[in-house]
Amino acid sequence: MENSCGNSRIVGCSFSVHPMSDQFVSYIKTSLQEVDTSKVWMHTDDVTTTVRGRMEHVFDVTKAILLHIAKTEVHVAFQGTFSIGCPGDSSGDVYMDETTERMNEAETRDIQQYIAAKFSLYPMGGGNYMDTIYSQIEAMKEKGVTVSPAHYSTRLEGDTHDIFSGLEDVFRETENSGSSHTVMTVTVSANSPTHKEKKS
Amino acid sequence: MENSCGNSRIVGCSFSVHPMSDQFVSYIKTSLQEVDTSKVWMHTDDVTTTVRGRMEHVFDVTKAILLHIAKTEVHVAFQGTFSIGCPGDSSGDVYMDETTERMNEAETRDIQQYIAAKFSLYPMGGGNYMDTIYSQIEAMKEKGVTVSPAHYSTRLEGDTHDIFSGLEDVFRETENSGSSHTVMTVTVSANSPTHKEKKS
Repeated sequence: MENSCGNSRIVGCSFSVHPMSDQFVSYIKTSLQEVDTSKVWMHTDDVTTTVRGRMEHVFDVTKAILLHIAKTEVHVAFQGTFSIGCPGDSSGDVYMDETTERMNEAETRDIQQYIAAKFSLYPMGGGNYMDTIYSQIEAMKEKGVTVSPAHYSTRLEGDTHDIFSGLEDVFRETENSGSSHTVMTVTVSANSPTHKEKKS
Repeated sequence: MENSCGNSRIVGCSFSVHPMSDQFVSYIKTSLQEVDTSKVWMHTDDVTTTVRGRMEHVFDVTKAILLHIAKTEVHVAFQGTFSIGCPGDSSGDVYMDETTERMNEAETRDIQQYIAAKFSLYPMGGGNYMDTIYSQIEAMKEKGVTVSPAHYSTRLEGDTHDIFSGLEDVFRETENSGSSHTVMTVTVSANSPTHKEKKS
């Protein structure tokens, strides 16, 4: 459980992607072949996949997996829990030495994908984070993301790149504000039947 | 965000179920018709469904929705965030007056369904919860649930009823231990291709 948090600044994300299709295995495998995961520790079991490493690579890889599935136009849901400050072990620490260049940015940059998302931020370790969060949400709005309140979360609608960069920013700035252990949950729906009229 | 938590003891769960099938809409709609949601406030949008009410009814309804889909043998994932102590509004408060009798227990009692799950507990509001959590995990093991550590979570394997009653117990006891705001995330996989050999 959450009782012994280490000092490593490694970021982890336990996530699942769910293509709503009889061919879900094929969608996932094809996406994974297209994503460069060389800069993150990665492990998959029957419930979730966990990636761990530098913050930018964790967001880069999770976004790329989502985009490579969503670009096929299948309805896909993504659910991820991003965590920093409670690594639990050191098996991924070697990945903290990777360079900052994002391995999937060039491949995914041109994939335009509308998504609806909800996120919740749980700063477990103090810090002066409320002003930070509000200013980051304002920054998301300026990028063109639609932000609205939802039960137990904040709702975001817009392009996948804008939303993921906004989520990465709010997560990083919460960390920087002094929270020793921060958790952020993100739920995404892409190509939902109810989104058809909104897609570009 | 999480800055103003009220005093209501209403429990909420924002969840998604993902049948990995071309017929995902039909699976979800059929399940919802089979579940009695009369004792909870419920709202669905394109990203999640939120149910709110007394703790026992929130767990009863979410378990029933999962089971009615899983009994069809389709591979289905469930992801839910249970929350108490930060209701955000009072629109569901009237449901706190419902009686404790669970509306879906009789219908679902005989559905045996192996699941693999991961849960994380985030007591945001203090309290002396670590001993509570450990004793509840021991209680789950005594019911026959297999418990093991996982990255950022605790892994559970076993029958759906045993796991959901264990999750409800650990959530309730954490609340009782004095945590003013408790969040628990639960991710479930049922009928995974890798589970075939484990099903009874």
